[in-house]
Amino acid sequence: MDSKEYIKAHKKYILPSTIDEKESEVLIRGDGVWVWTESGRKYFDLCSQVSCANIGHNHTTLTKGMRRFWDLAVKKKVISVVMGTDFFHNNRDFYKNKCFNEYSPVALTEKLSPHIFGSGKTEFAFDISGAQSVNNPTRYFRTVTGKPYRIAFEKGFHGRHGESRDSSSSKPIHWNEAPRSEDVYFLPYPETYWNLDQCMKQLNDIPLKECSSFIYEPVQGEGGGMRVGWQLPKIEKVLKKEGLFSISDEIQAGLGRCGTWWGYQKLGLDPDCIVMGKSLGSGHPVSAAAFKKEITDSFDLPPGKISGTFPMYPVGMAAANLTIKIFEEEKLVENAEKLSLPFSELLRNAISPFNIFGADRVTFVIDGLGLYRSLKPYGMDNLGDIVLRDKILWKLRDLGFLTIPASESYPAIRLTPPLISTVEDLKGVAEAIYKVTRPD
Amino acid sequence: MDSKEYIKAHKKYILPSTIDEKESEVLIRGDGVWVWTESGRKYFDLCSQVSCANIGHNHTTLTKGMRRFWDLAVKKKVISVVMGTDFFHNNRDFYKNKCFNEYSPVALTEKLSPHIFGSGKTEFAFDISGAQSVNNPTRYFRTVTGKPYRIAFEKGFHGRHGESRDSSSSKPIHWNEAPRSEDVYFLPYPETYWNLDQCMKQLNDIPLKECSSFIYEPVQGEGGGMRVGWQLPKIEKVLKKEGLFSISDEIQAGLGRCGTWWGYQKLGLDPDCIVMGKSLGSGHPVSAAAFKKEITDSFDLPPGKISGTFPMYPVGMAAANLTIKIFEEEKLVENAEKLSLPFSELLRNAISPFNIFGADRVTFVIDGLGLYRSLKPYGMDNLGDIVLRDKILWKLRDLGFLTIPASESYPAIRLTPPLISTVEDLKGVAEAIYKVTRPD
Repeated sequence: MDSKEYIKAHKKYILPSTIDEKESEVLIRGDGVWVWTESGRKYFDLCSQVSCANIGHNHTTLTKGMRRFWDLAVKKKVISVVMGTDFFHNNRDFYKNKCFNEYSPVALTEKLSPHIFGSGKTEFAFDISGAQSVNNPTRYFRTVTGKPYRIAFEKGFHGRHGESRDSSSSKPIHWNEAPRSEDVYFLPYPETYWNLDQCMKQLNDIPLKECSSFIYEPVQGEGGGMRVGWQLPKIEKVLKKEGLFSISDEIQAGLGRCGTWWGYQKLGLDPDCIVMGKSLGSGHPVSAAAFKKEITDSFDLPPGKISGTFPMYPVGMAAANLTIKIFEEEKLVENAEKLSLPFSELLRNAISPFNIFGADRVTFVIDGLGLYRSLKPYGMDNLGDIVLRDKILWKLRDLGFLTIPASESYPAIRLTPPLISTVEDLKGVAEAIYKVTRPD
Repeated sequence: MDSKEYIKAHKKYILPSTIDEKESEVLIRGDGVWVWTESGRKYFDLCSQVSCANIGHNHTTLTKGMRRFWDLAVKKKVISVVMGTDFFHNNRDFYKNKCFNEYSPVALTEKLSPHIFGSGKTEFAFDISGAQSVNNPTRYFRTVTGKPYRIAFEKGFHGRHGESRDSSSSKPIHWNEAPRSEDVYFLPYPETYWNLDQCMKQLNDIPLKECSSFIYEPVQGEGGGMRVGWQLPKIEKVLKKEGLFSISDEIQAGLGRCGTWWGYQKLGLDPDCIVMGKSLGSGHPVSAAAFKKEITDSFDLPPGKISGTFPMYPVGMAAANLTIKIFEEEKLVENAEKLSLPFSELLRNAISPFNIFGADRVTFVIDGLGLYRSLKPYGMDNLGDIVLRDKILWKLRDLGFLTIPASESYPAIRLTPPLISTVEDLKGVAEAIYKVTRPD
């Protein structure tokens, strides 16, 4: 069975997922910022697998760590990996047969806390998908306050299941004709002063005293094509004054992507809870909500309210601990911050000579911040811009750069390299952008 | 940090999950049907980690297979494990550098299909949690039929997020004060003729022509304490005649637990789609919905309708392929079937001498089928039965048998041994049940 036959079988026996119909190659190898296809082509991973590969591909600290994990499972039968439940305490003593080890859920909280609300000041709820981890604090705040409503932002995307979907308005496709939930109020995403003004006006129509929480993305990834919520801190201040709790969705913006550990820090936001996922488990589904402990300490939550089969499963916890270890050892957040300004300048220089794109008078824009960037064609109607976006995507592919749109309905191309990239890598990206934004 | 300190830290920094407050031990080793705590105590795993450990603990085919997976990631950088997305074709050539290998999503469909609707007659949608995999067919049928309503059964449990929660009525705790969804009609679970009669009457109040699907558990695990839906086939026949599609939730009942590959087969049901999870990835979050291909072939579904970040992630696909390989090689389903009658007889004999439990006049009942069994005290009020249930649970723990309730609010104890158990193991279980059901 070659690639062609494999893809045919895939389409025949697996329902259509996000994989583009035009996708005709199979990725078979990965190393650092690079991936290879079966036909031997080599690509720079310019989408970091939708921010799942912030540490790059097949990082040896991860792969060797996991090999050791399984080697001990084979040789010493230490902690069963089949314990995919949060019904028992487990995942200790895996590595050193000591009482505490660095691959437990507790160890993960200790590694992450200093970068969030501080050591001893952060409380976690683990889960396996971003969507489920958005649901957990949403429910928590609704339950403990008893207030039925909440607020989200237009064009936001927080997941596909339950409250996370109810808070999303990025794409009608996620709704699958479900009845629209009536407990969420949507505000315009406050990118500009003008948006902020709109937001403030609309607040008058919302029963704020009956709203438990509001959720935002510091940078709108999927629905906004890396629009930055520059004016979010002002809205947050007003809403918190009214007694609402704030949730920062850091599933894509977090874990170094913006040049800080979390996107909220870049913008000076003050969330009561942040949600992380994607890169956290480096290829394993691991997600978490991290709360300010002063808040969780002030409310009682009965056991079982936030739960599931797989939260804190040993394999995922090991992978997440290894991931954060890599972040620390290689100073990936610092590297992302160091690359931010050069990346921005390189990209802006690349598009500036062709900011008016031939007869179509298309303007190109670089949006986002840090290593969370996008290239947007502006000028035709939305469909025209999307057609041009796809043309540019496949030209980038020809030049050896693998990426995807922010979402299929938005005219933006992800420029989100792994955090292990070098300035030289980013120069290569900018050169490619220069080439593909020239008229034919 | 010893066990005590560890559990203290866990409680301090991680929000309450399902872990029982009384849980004072940490599991540190597992082998086959056995697990060990830090203090050296050895337990028979009588709950199979809530049916996540059907193959038992640290099965060498799994652990060696995964070690090889990671070894190749270290040495040859073959397919990046960080590809936690369904945006690209991947997870091929991992093992043999051949075009097709046995650890891909396609390979998994080929292994499973013969046991469901047949080779070439089964189409899959993969995901990572049971809840999300319940949502997928629920949405699919709603979308393709355009019918807004659906049907579920009282005391059912299908998950905690979105449509899966809306279809559940087992425990109010799952709702977290969310507004109750109004698109689901609940019928009494048809265990008996009497229930069936009730069901049939209530059908008159439901707009069946506007219902897209109905979902059932062949055996109600969490909410029903292993009640068997003996009369489900009759309801299914009626509802399918009205044009509704049926979904069998096999997350716990499936993968051999009932003595057949899927619970629906034991009862002679005819679902249009089944949902699986838990044991599928043996410690990795992997779930799937398997549809009759003749149905999915007759409707168009745009890409992106069923999607997510992690479906078909390489590590999970490898683990699921290894799991089904173990099922095949060791004939686990056949073993479960072979053990079913002896287990039933042993358990019934164990409780029969003490069916009236001292002065309290408590009756014990063994419910369920196959290796999906429960012990239920009946006689006091619900709370009294639950107190007795917990007393028996901790007595079983003292005798070396580790298990949990069906759910915290239901007076039933899980008797669900791994499918690799022997008749000798089950004799041990029965002896313990004999002891703990005697009056003090």
